[in-house]
Amino acid sequence: MVKVALVGYGYWGPNLARNLHELPGACFTACCDLDATRLALVKRLYPQVVAISRPQDVWNDISIEAVVIATPARTHFDLARAALRAGKHVLVEKPLTLNSRHAEQLIKLAQSQGRVLMVGHTFEYNPAMLKIKELMDQGELGEVYYAYCTRVNLGRLQPDLNALWSIAPHDISMLLLLFQQMPLEVSATGAWYLNSGVEDVVFVNLLFADGARGHVHASWLDPSKVRRMTVVGSKRMVVYDDLATEGKIRIYDKGVLIGGNHRVYGEFQYRLHSGDINIPKIDMSEPLRNECAHFVECIREGKQPRTDGENGLRVVTVLEWAERSMRKRGAPVQVTT
Amino acid sequence: MVKVALVGYGYWGPNLARNLHELPGACFTACCDLDATRLALVKRLYPQVVAISRPQDVWNDISIEAVVIATPARTHFDLARAALRAGKHVLVEKPLTLNSRHAEQLIKLAQSQGRVLMVGHTFEYNPAMLKIKELMDQGELGEVYYAYCTRVNLGRLQPDLNALWSIAPHDISMLLLLFQQMPLEVSATGAWYLNSGVEDVVFVNLLFADGARGHVHASWLDPSKVRRMTVVGSKRMVVYDDLATEGKIRIYDKGVLIGGNHRVYGEFQYRLHSGDINIPKIDMSEPLRNECAHFVECIREGKQPRTDGENGLRVVTVLEWAERSMRKRGAPVQVTT
Amino acid sequence: MVKVALVGYGYWGPNLARNLHELPGACFTACCDLDATRLALVKRLYPQVVAISRPQDVWNDISIEAVVIATPARTHFDLARAALRAGKHVLVEKPLTLNSRHAEQLIKLAQSQGRVLMVGHTFEYNPAMLKIKELMDQGELGEVYYAYCTRVNLGRLQPDLNALWSIAPHDISMLLLLFQQMPLEVSATGAWYLNSGVEDVVFVNLLFADGARGHVHASWLDPSKVRRMTVVGSKRMVVYDDLATEGKIRIYDKGVLIGGNHRVYGEFQYRLHSGDINIPKIDMSEPLRNECAHFVECIREGKQPRTDGENGLRVVTVLEWAERSMRKRGAPVQVTT
Amino acid sequence: MVKVALVGYGYWGPNLARNLHELPGACFTACCDLDATRLALVKRLYPQVVAISRPQDVWNDISIEAVVIATPARTHFDLARAALRAGKHVLVEKPLTLNSRHAEQLIKLAQSQGRVLMVGHTFEYNPAMLKIKELMDQGELGEVYYAYCTRVNLGRLQPDLNALWSIAPHDISMLLLLFQQMPLEVSATGAWYLNSGVEDVVFVNLLFADGARGHVHASWLDPSKVRRMTVVGSKRMVVYDDLATEGKIRIYDKGVLIGGNHRVYGEFQYRLHSGDINIPKIDMSEPLRNECAHFVECIREGKQPRTDGENGLRVVTVLEWAERSMRKRGAPVQVTT
Repeated sequence: MVKVALVGYGYWGPNLARNLHELPGACFTACCDLDATRLALVKRLYPQVVAISRPQDVWNDISIEAVVIATPARTHFDLARAALRAGKHVLVEKPLTLNSRHAEQLIKLAQSQGRVLMVGHTFEYNPAMLKIKELMDQGELGEVYYAYCTRVNLGRLQPDLNALWSIAPHDISMLLLLFQQMPLEVSATGAWYLNSGVEDVVFVNLLFADGARGHVHASWLDPSKVRRMTVVGSKRMVVYDDLATEGKIRIYDKGVLIGGNHRVYGEFQYRLHSGDINIPKIDMSEPLRNECAHFVECIREGKQPRTDGENGLRVVTVLEWAERSMRKRGAPVQVTT
Repeated sequence: MVKVALVGYGYWGPNLARNLHELPGACFTACCDLDATRLALVKRLYPQVVAISRPQDVWNDISIEAVVIATPARTHFDLARAALRAGKHVLVEKPLTLNSRHAEQLIKLAQSQGRVLMVGHTFEYNPAMLKIKELMDQGELGEVYYAYCTRVNLGRLQPDLNALWSIAPHDISMLLLLFQQMPLEVSATGAWYLNSGVEDVVFVNLLFADGARGHVHASWLDPSKVRRMTVVGSKRMVVYDDLATEGKIRIYDKGVLIGGNHRVYGEFQYRLHSGDINIPKIDMSEPLRNECAHFVECIREGKQPRTDGENGLRVVTVLEWAERSMRKRGAPVQVTT
Repeated sequence: MVKVALVGYGYWGPNLARNLHELPGACFTACCDLDATRLALVKRLYPQVVAISRPQDVWNDISIEAVVIATPARTHFDLARAALRAGKHVLVEKPLTLNSRHAEQLIKLAQSQGRVLMVGHTFEYNPAMLKIKELMDQGELGEVYYAYCTRVNLGRLQPDLNALWSIAPHDISMLLLLFQQMPLEVSATGAWYLNSGVEDVVFVNLLFADGARGHVHASWLDPSKVRRMTVVGSKRMVVYDDLATEGKIRIYDKGVLIGGNHRVYGEFQYRLHSGDINIPKIDMSEPLRNECAHFVECIREGKQPRTDGENGLRVVTVLEWAERSMRKRGAPVQVTT
Repeated sequence: MVKVALVGYGYWGPNLARNLHELPGACFTACCDLDATRLALVKRLYPQVVAISRPQDVWNDISIEAVVIATPARTHFDLARAALRAGKHVLVEKPLTLNSRHAEQLIKLAQSQGRVLMVGHTFEYNPAMLKIKELMDQGELGEVYYAYCTRVNLGRLQPDLNALWSIAPHDISMLLLLFQQMPLEVSATGAWYLNSGVEDVVFVNLLFADGARGHVHASWLDPSKVRRMTVVGSKRMVVYDDLATEGKIRIYDKGVLIGGNHRVYGEFQYRLHSGDINIPKIDMSEPLRNECAHFVECIREGKQPRTDGENGLRVVTVLEWAERSMRKRGAPVQVTT
């Protein structure tokens, strides 16, 4: 049993707590939060857990092997660094850090310490997402032209972290997972309406080497909750709606072939192929459960996590480029390596 | 009875034909198309209509007072100019022309000829759209922060006209109707996957003087048909789904108020207001019918159409700016007047 | 070209008129209605059609070969009889007649006159419905246990014809098409809330020889329009939603196998199979168009219509049994042959 | 803190366990199940809970004040009787018992013991359901004509308890809550396809004194999960969809007024009123949480539960009548009191 401490019992922490508690291979040992009310709550729900108010006390407890960090993003780097220095395995919620330099430091530190560093890109543990990747890898979608993600709803505004950094990491992680490469060029626009300087709505465009593209629309100022990704391939297209009640993925047997030449006053020649829609049966396991289980498995077997530090760094890097483009009002940023 | 000729009986023409035929105040007199098969079809469905293969013969027929032009966009200018010169009232399908210079010429010509020039921005005759405008004008939405439109589906590819010019005019027209001003700045990105140089997918951003924004996502390469506009106001938000089977507009009694200051490790202060959703009863009249009726009414009463030449010019101008930004890979274009 | 007259231009008539007019093999020649306003309307829309106010004048016109009857159900028998006697081919809207005796008379008359008698059970010409039948015939659904239909909405109340006779004929026709046999037993309940003695809401149950069942819920007093049929088979299940915007049929790869024996305090043994959902591509042709084309084809080729008089009689007979059970407050009626 | 034991940790037990554990006023003290694997699981999730394999040991533990029974329905009576005899307050899952005699015995026993007896009719603690009741009580719906419930999905087959007794109790409880009276007449039909003698699909009709009706369609052999209730009133209509993701209740401002007299070949006179649809904001609290809290509150304050023994008895009585009608193939059963 891997003894795990949770640092941060705010909005997302309770979900992690529940999963750590229920996970067969883990022992949810301690929970740290600055807020006494939150600690009292965690204590009531998990009487066996040690409630801790100072992170230092988590680091110092040598019985604790692993730490899950679910605090505000601005604290991720300091806490993860401290935890790694104390010899803990670390799972950090997304985004890994707020800049790539910090992410690189954590990667090096984890390496030198021989500890697991993992980032909580939950969608990479989502069976629906993995199904799309599988379809793509098997060539079922043909050439994938582009994919776009919509992640909007009302609420969860962040005081100091715009929608790009607080919402879009999921989508960037999904797009990088699909396309398996870094973009050549990134552009982004954003707008703030509520809190000066903190974008409520952002649009991000990624251009990949082979001409494929990824698009993200992220917002916390929208009437309706939408969690949707559309992947457009030459042979098939997929819509992934995370809120659908009956089948989250729809595979459209649809495509277009261009051919022939044009006629005046007429249609040019293309053959539109439009067949069945398939809603595949998908394993219903909770992505966060899979993520936590993977963390524990990596610790026990000394494996590199699928969403390791490098993976976290890639997402942070793309976010940085997008931020830079946003500051230039949407002008594209060429990626330097 | 206003005697009307329809020029172009291709994809959209049949809808105009049906409406012109059924409209009480109009007499659908003649139909012109280069394709004999199309002419035979129109003749079979409307035996009383004169089938004409040369536009010139429409211009020459002095019994014809008005002409509706539903041909490929590249022919709009020439045909509309010829019709106006022949003294006809003219309704041109969107986009009015392919550049603003041409639009300006048509406006002047219509003026000097004393004829009605109208553009087929159907959504400005759509009861759902007009309801949103009414809500906005009455202050029901509070300050409108932004609106975004999604108009995607598979098919209706154009050989020589990208998705910006062939699909987005509707959305640009809707956004200008709502915000009642021209944007200060336009940016756009697009991508072609099928036909080199002809964008299949475009994203357009408009920035208005008061900080409000409009966004458009238009594509003919998408698995699912979507026709949706979301308007986000400080007091209420509206989602308009043109394909909804039960109520096309949803009014969300939702908003966010910002206040107070921040705490470490905590939430900053905002008050989220989330009340009922209202689906107002909307008049079910066909927008295209309303549009055709408005055209006839303007002819009979010598009125300026709501979507007159100036209105058409404004949309064309925004499309030009968007095109320019798209050529600069998304860099914003400052609007000059 | 078969010259066709339409008798009745009320609620449904315009749909028939449009189809008869557009059908290549037919010539929509005359239209009869008692209401002068309706006749004026039809005249305006179809200038080539002769407007007739007395049915007798239709019978007398020897150039008219075929008649489509879309009048109130209580007049079906008289009008169809007169038309057949005058030597016309006849398509009658559903229900064929209001009692089985009348239906039998029409069948005999059509036979002795050597004319086509067809009933407008549109769903038997609906590609979605035919797809379900095809799946069932190919054994794709396994043993079909039962099917149920919901056909409810607000409006189209009939003054003298309850929901059973005015709405349920479609569903009875669909169930008989699927199960290809008459039921052994019928039970039905109904209730009136608006107009004494005329049921607004009815529930009908059919029991077939092999234990399969059919259920119908029909109502014109319901807030939401629903047109749905569910077919439950041992191997697969199908939901047919006629109002679905993206694929009207969903094929569920679902089933249950029973086996083993029970345990105290535990689950008994059954194996639930739950796989993909498939939304097959279905031909988008208009069912009413197919129906009209079939009528014309049967006339020209001397064929028996798929929904001939016998088919109409079967539906009327089931409706009679259901009516009888409804009068007995739901007690089952054994079918006598 | 009321010390509560849970008897039965099968399918539904875990939901009760979670709520009892998280409820501020309760202390989830002990859990009893015959299955050692289930006990091990509960022990792992709730380390502070005493795991007990014999119900007798629960009764004997005098520190336990209250018992929640979530075992198979056939054991409800014996277990509840034993618990009450041991002086415990008792919450029994629905149905309270399998016959009305047993329910009456439990009621008397609870009375003589001075203990709370409550039945788990969860929907009577569901904010959406209570909203509908409130609308009805305030006259917002006008005269309520009828209500119908659909509760179908695939799975949760019971070896010895048909769909009537295992699924329909929820709907019967909801209908009795709305109409606040016992029906005069009950009819029901059902069919088994899988397990001889155990109905998989049932239809129940209730007739109330004022002519109002209630209908239930319950099945565990259906491809799609549906949890829906429609309430049709003279002024307004309500659809409650428990699976809707955005607002579970839709209030339709719809109604029909009958008037005038009929015309031959025409429409009789009725005025259809069809206005806005409203989706009211509903409190998101978990019904089962509310139910558990109510149980604890009744214990602490010596109050009669809203779903007390009498309430449970009423539902069991209606189920008995329905069962009787089902044995008579749907013939109505007059209610005797």
